[in-house]
Amino acid sequence: MLTSNAKSVLTVTALLALMALPFAGRTAGGQDPAEGKTALLPAGSRLTELPLTAVQIQDAFWSPRLEVNRTRTLDHVYKELEATECIRNFDVASGKVQAKFGGPWWADSDVYKWIEGASYILALHPDARLESKVDELIAKIAAAQQKDGYLDTYIQLNLPDLKWKSLAFNHEMFCAGSLFEAAVAHNQATGKRSLLDVALRLADHLDSTFGPGKQAGIPGHEEVELALVRLYRLTHEKRYLQLAQYFLDSRGQKPSIFERQYEQLPERKVDLLGHPMDIKDFYRRFFLINPAKFDTSYSQDQLPVRQQRVAVGHAVRAMYLYSGMADLVYETGDPGLWEALQSLHDSVTNHRMYVTGGIGPSERNEGFTADYDLPNEDAYQETCASAGMILWNYRMLKLTGDARYADTMELSLYNALAAGVSLTGDTFCYVTPLASRGDFKRDPWFGVPCCPTTIARFVPALGRYIYSESPDGLWVNLFIAGQVNANVAGKKVTLRQSGNYPWDGKIKFTVGVEAPQDFAVRVRVPGWAAGAGFQVNGEKFSPHVVNGYAEIRRSWSNGDTIDLTLPMDIQRIEANPQVLYDHGKTALRRGPLFFCLEQADQEAPVEQIILPLGAQLESQYAPGLLGGITVIKGQGLLRPLDDWKDVLYQPVRPAATKPVPITAVPYCIWGNRGLGKMAVWLNTTP
Amino acid sequence: MLTSNAKSVLTVTALLALMALPFAGRTAGGQDPAEGKTALLPAGSRLTELPLTAVQIQDAFWSPRLEVNRTRTLDHVYKELEATECIRNFDVASGKVQAKFGGPWWADSDVYKWIEGASYILALHPDARLESKVDELIAKIAAAQQKDGYLDTYIQLNLPDLKWKSLAFNHEMFCAGSLFEAAVAHNQATGKRSLLDVALRLADHLDSTFGPGKQAGIPGHEEVELALVRLYRLTHEKRYLQLAQYFLDSRGQKPSIFERQYEQLPERKVDLLGHPMDIKDFYRRFFLINPAKFDTSYSQDQLPVRQQRVAVGHAVRAMYLYSGMADLVYETGDPGLWEALQSLHDSVTNHRMYVTGGIGPSERNEGFTADYDLPNEDAYQETCASAGMILWNYRMLKLTGDARYADTMELSLYNALAAGVSLTGDTFCYVTPLASRGDFKRDPWFGVPCCPTTIARFVPALGRYIYSESPDGLWVNLFIAGQVNANVAGKKVTLRQSGNYPWDGKIKFTVGVEAPQDFAVRVRVPGWAAGAGFQVNGEKFSPHVVNGYAEIRRSWSNGDTIDLTLPMDIQRIEANPQVLYDHGKTALRRGPLFFCLEQADQEAPVEQIILPLGAQLESQYAPGLLGGITVIKGQGLLRPLDDWKDVLYQPVRPAATKPVPITAVPYCIWGNRGLGKMAVWLNTTP
Repeated sequence: MLTSNAKSVLTVTALLALMALPFAGRTAGGQDPAEGKTALLPAGSRLTELPLTAVQIQDAFWSPRLEVNRTRTLDHVYKELEATECIRNFDVASGKVQAKFGGPWWADSDVYKWIEGASYILALHPDARLESKVDELIAKIAAAQQKDGYLDTYIQLNLPDLKWKSLAFNHEMFCAGSLFEAAVAHNQATGKRSLLDVALRLADHLDSTFGPGKQAGIPGHEEVELALVRLYRLTHEKRYLQLAQYFLDSRGQKPSIFERQYEQLPERKVDLLGHPMDIKDFYRRFFLINPAKFDTSYSQDQLPVRQQRVAVGHAVRAMYLYSGMADLVYETGDPGLWEALQSLHDSVTNHRMYVTGGIGPSERNEGFTADYDLPNEDAYQETCASAGMILWNYRMLKLTGDARYADTMELSLYNALAAGVSLTGDTFCYVTPLASRGDFKRDPWFGVPCCPTTIARFVPALGRYIYSESPDGLWVNLFIAGQVNANVAGKKVTLRQSGNYPWDGKIKFTVGVEAPQDFAVRVRVPGWAAGAGFQVNGEKFSPHVVNGYAEIRRSWSNGDTIDLTLPMDIQRIEANPQVLYDHGKTALRRGPLFFCLEQADQEAPVEQIILPLGAQLESQYAPGLLGGITVIKGQGLLRPLDDWKDVLYQPVRPAATKPVPITAVPYCIWGNRGLGKMAVWLNTTP
Repeated sequence: MLTSNAKSVLTVTALLALMALPFAGRTAGGQDPAEGKTALLPAGSRLTELPLTAVQIQDAFWSPRLEVNRTRTLDHVYKELEATECIRNFDVASGKVQAKFGGPWWADSDVYKWIEGASYILALHPDARLESKVDELIAKIAAAQQKDGYLDTYIQLNLPDLKWKSLAFNHEMFCAGSLFEAAVAHNQATGKRSLLDVALRLADHLDSTFGPGKQAGIPGHEEVELALVRLYRLTHEKRYLQLAQYFLDSRGQKPSIFERQYEQLPERKVDLLGHPMDIKDFYRRFFLINPAKFDTSYSQDQLPVRQQRVAVGHAVRAMYLYSGMADLVYETGDPGLWEALQSLHDSVTNHRMYVTGGIGPSERNEGFTADYDLPNEDAYQETCASAGMILWNYRMLKLTGDARYADTMELSLYNALAAGVSLTGDTFCYVTPLASRGDFKRDPWFGVPCCPTTIARFVPALGRYIYSESPDGLWVNLFIAGQVNANVAGKKVTLRQSGNYPWDGKIKFTVGVEAPQDFAVRVRVPGWAAGAGFQVNGEKFSPHVVNGYAEIRRSWSNGDTIDLTLPMDIQRIEANPQVLYDHGKTALRRGPLFFCLEQADQEAPVEQIILPLGAQLESQYAPGLLGGITVIKGQGLLRPLDDWKDVLYQPVRPAATKPVPITAVPYCIWGNRGLGKMAVWLNTTP
């Protein structure tokens, strides 16, 4: 009878009515046998992060992406932030410019995320022009900050009476967290305190506002928890850690803090397209999935965090929350949080994750729905959520040294996340489908521009994830060529990584020491890589594998080498039969990459191609294609549609098929050649 | 970052950003070979409808449904209409009661639809109590009508200055059409003019308001066109036919009438939950799919109707429009409309229809999307649209005598439409999925209650569709046991139909004449029934089959018989490979019915059952099940999930399967045994 918009309003009340453990191959070694869970490493032996500047990347796959990010994405994003008035807001708030607030209400966060990305780039590529551009921007931000430390230009300009009073809807704390992260990055990159001082004033304001005996509050969009831990790690100021813990501990109350705040909203109009609208109506109508009832699970507020076992709600928020929980476990060893995190990880990776490592199938809540509900063409799989998977899994890895988390991190990185940006670095996926009828393309910007700014800050910090340290040695988490300069037991150690991963499975590590030294090098053996082989100094070596890391502990001399050979055979992957969307289909994996059929490479329409299980497949490096990629070639079957002209249904008849060559390309580079059909899951039987 | 509601607002502007021929077997005989189209029968030889009272139904399948409709649905719907204030609105409008308008803004139409259903029941089952209840209601309606004939209680009470001025949004013309239909039905059932007089006053008001040289207007929700033709057929008042034609001719202007009206809306507030909201904003926000741009295709206003070739937009609106177009072709022979109708029919049945005969996959527009986009679990398939398919195909049949339209009518009737109401008659499907994870149920009422009132008026008029007349004889369109009392060439002819269809394929017709008489009996041979056999008076007979109707023309004596045997073998149906959702799956058909697996009948979880193509299947009549149904039993395969515990993806391995018995039940009776999983399309291969 009417549009669904109208209907969702109408059905509410009478008044309203009016109107895997990623994949196989991983053994359980090192897991707690009683629980089937991974053990938390004791405090002091957890993995630590190396400074970003300690890691150099010279990698065939990633170096061009980093270069494009530095030379194109950063500038493109800045211009869009300027064009959409997100930067001007700080001048408006400081009184330098007379104008209305522009951009979305969390616009500040996108500016901070740009600064964070720019800071990583400054750390790795000193650039006076960029540094002074950042300095100017920081001056605007500092000028906009209130004397009491409060800073959120949207609230300052539009709702100054509602500071911290509508946390479910407004993104003050999300913006604050983004500021803290940018400030830490900027301080570490430049040594300057300009943004850090702003951040600490806001953090102190937050700390004086919220906590036991003070105002009750939690972020509607999580992020501030992990950012406070990051501030704590930089400053060693315990209050920031305690505040992060307070925010985590305060979720899941009945009634929730959000509901209590909503009830206490004043009678007040907000401006809606030039027309006044009651603020409660406004929030209810535009921010709540179901206007009749607060959906607390949307913001992971349905239960106290230690009782949460199933991943629910908005996927990006969930990833930031779980990352913050992991950070707290790292600092405190909190057993309740750790238990919850393991179940949440099982929930995501065993029941609610795309084969690409992306999450969140539904547009409706930008998030999780039900186990095995993973549609392909209609996949939401937001790029920010893919980045969030990496943030979270990286933290789980640091807690455990368990390669299962590095496997998932690699999966999300090389597939879902990498697909989120074009090779030219100036168009992005917000939504990232796993199949397309040919009408999907990346866009240069969005009304909700979180994904471009996420790419801008994520990519230049890639080095962070490649290696870790622990007291007895170095960990290799990812196979990205380059070098790490570490300190092991107070002595300078370098590890050079070379190879042509992910196109090739041969990886060489060369140890640099000033004098022979005992320590462990732990190299991840990917869960997908059954039969990986090692050589040390050219001799076959069978390392002890603990939690998926091959442990090579010896007295290392300068120039010692480790050769790792990962089998790069093409695998046919199937989904749990409960994923109804993938029934009768398989996906192609080679190494960490999943492949897809893009129409540009096929002789037959993608949707008519069948790839029987017995199909011969081989990989070929195509140096001229899309910057150089490995493709998979083989013989599929084409089911012609001659019988189906203007016929929608008919009794089954033997399917006449004929051979057709197929070429599959990595999913991460799809959509770089104009519009065209695409599929990750390929029909296996006629 | 935020809810999709908010996002759809945000992505619009910077300011907004702030905030088969059904199946095989039918030969082309009788179609125009040059066009592959069906020929329009000449005026005078088109099929005509028999009075509802001329048709009696004594049918194992339908009689219990008619009885439940009469004894339960009618009363249930009335009570809900009362409880939701839809009936009181007329007393409020007439000034008898002081209150606000209640129910949705098209509430009047649901009341009229109830009267239409009640009138059919009165025609078939005289009932003084019901008749006086209808009379009282009509008195309320008449009292609410304005002196000038205008009648729409929502507009009268809420927006009296906006009469006919927001036709895209408000449903005045939809309500008017529903009134006209009810008035014709009431007059034909009772001989009374009470409601007809109201209808004619409103029709005359409409006629004096709209048309060449008068105000420009078209209905936002079509229906008034076919209703005006119905008024014309009763009254022979040509103005009504001309007004229907005017409305059809006026669609598809650039800019559209809707856009022009929208621009001319006054500066005015409407009440939104007690708060004033600008009317343009209100309409834009709550009524338009895409607030930035008038989506004229939503209301089939994207092109002049004679240029329309592809079925688009809101499915129910489309069905009413196409039905109105067919009615006009029936009266005028309009070749442009006829050409459009044939293409639209091809568009729907060859590219955009569920195997159940339902239409409209998407919740977003309650309507059509793209060719072959037919998701199962997420199917919208509104019950009103299923009824609309029957209305439209029935009219196409009357224009052509082509059984392809009767085939589609039967398909929609026995599957999509029949599934729209429970066996108890008091719960309904608005949305009607073709697969369920077990969380779907029918509801007693909806904030948008069009589907229950559609069922209330559709079911009791079922007799209308079974037979037709033409100058030289009788047509049997549907196999529903009972009798028709006709006049052929001025002489009384009866045709008795007996059998146990759709459970059994043997159908007997017995002719009743007062004296031997020459005429044709045309019996539809369903497109799915290859090898149907006829006997006349016990002798094998090979009739001439024209357009899918077996023509038996002879001198009929009293008691002559025709025996029709339809092969009721179980068919495995597959979908066009371009329907990606159904790849690797087949559906089960027996006779006109599609079957499904309901969890209640299975030993294994529905989603784990595979039904290989070679599976032995047999049908069994189960007299005690759900009022007596035929089930399909057979041996399927169960793919156990032992390998898949907590595993989401893994390399393909041979699927271990074990035999499992399966029982399939007709789709039309699914969901009558509580919550449970269900699937129409069954996995065919492991």
